Amino acid sequence: MPKKVDHEARRLEIAEALWRIASTRGLDGVSLRDVAAEADISLGRLQHYFRTKDEMLLFALRHINSLADQRIRERIGALAAEPGTGAGPSAESEAETGQGPPPGAVLRECLMGMLPLDEKSRVGTLVGAAYFARAIHDERLREEAREGIPRLAEFLASLLRSARERGETAGGRALDPYTEAMLLISLVDGLTAYTLLGVQTGEEAAQRLDAHLDRLFADR
Amino acid sequence: MPKKVDHEARRLEIAEALWRIASTRGLDGVSLRDVAAEADISLGRLQHYFRTKDEMLLFALRHINSLADQRIRERIGALAAEPGTGAGPSAESEAETGQGPPPGAVLRECLMGMLPLDEKSRVGTLVGAAYFARAIHDERLREEAREGIPRLAEFLASLLRSARERGETAGGRALDPYTEAMLLISLVDGLTAYTLLGVQTGEEAAQRLDAHLDRLFADR
Repeated sequence: MPKKVDHEARRLEIAEALWRIASTRGLDGVSLRDVAAEADISLGRLQHYFRTKDEMLLFALRHINSLADQRIRERIGALAAEPGTGAGPSAESEAETGQGPPPGAVLRECLMGMLPLDEKSRVGTLVGAAYFARAIHDERLREEAREGIPRLAEFLASLLRSARERGETAGGRALDPYTEAMLLISLVDGLTAYTLLGVQTGEEAAQRLDAHLDRLFADR
Repeated sequence: MPKKVDHEARRLEIAEALWRIASTRGLDGVSLRDVAAEADISLGRLQHYFRTKDEMLLFALRHINSLADQRIRERIGALAAEPGTGAGPSAESEAETGQGPPPGAVLRECLMGMLPLDEKSRVGTLVGAAYFARAIHDERLREEAREGIPRLAEFLASLLRSARERGETAGGRALDPYTEAMLLISLVDGLTAYTLLGVQTGEEAAQRLDAHLDRLFADR
């Protein structure tokens, strides 16, 4: 195996060890030594790949987010292939005719994909929670959120705009799409927190999100 | 000073030391020894008041929540005294005539009081964030949320019901009040998280919450 690939593979193995710790006992007080033990390598070897806990946490978070992105893309892809949602022979022809899956349905898949509804997304949100607790006191980790969240909000706002143009939205008071997008992201964040705390089940969280989306979309 | 009062006063001093740490560097990896140092007492003396970090965190969280409750009550009291909001000579006569402050306005004060909009509420939400990160992996700490959140949701739901009975709500699709209340609590939770992360200012968080409330209430 080429050296670069090996390096990346080893970093992923370490990230997975970190996720196992994050999803069972959390990251409070967890040292690089603990993660090395979980990954079954020496501390010196771990430090060859990550010099600090924050560096490791950031890598693990980015990777778990990219896996979540991929799962969400697959769910959107499945939507496009469903009958009656404008499924065409290829994504290109859909774009040409403007007949992709309804933007409201795409928006729903994105938001549902962010909730802890199965084991994979649960681990992702647990790593996210551990990251959040550190990031509020760490300028470098905060940067990640300050860049990522407005980008996500812009994307969701563009879906809301498309939905309006296609007449998918309900008749109620229309908010500015960016405001609506930030409200949706915040809502999912809070629903996730109360699911992780056991205040509600994942199913209840999904039902509550759907109740809010039903208010925004006339018919999705 | 009687011994019991002294005991409680000392526990409050320790809780305040914990808040100072929580609001500056967070509680990740913070030991009882660190808190004893911040409170300027010996570790042995601290352990006379709190045996474990979780016991101390729970006491500090309950106390900071009760201070927040008190601030919110004062803000609601101030509403009742404002002209044009049904201010009567006493709370009793208001209850008799059903002319207290509008339930929508009370709801808004409760929710705004939960956002980190000033230094006191900011410290409260920082302690809450530190508690959250531990609670998702600690059954006893989770219990606190599993009891407290449904109680809060019930209270907010009762305000929503009163608002509907008084015709304060907007014409849009009406959700079940408990669902609406859980959505509001989740929304405030997420808005708080993104304010603490510096994704938005406190002012922006308040504006976004108001945009959502304006959608629910026709005229508040």
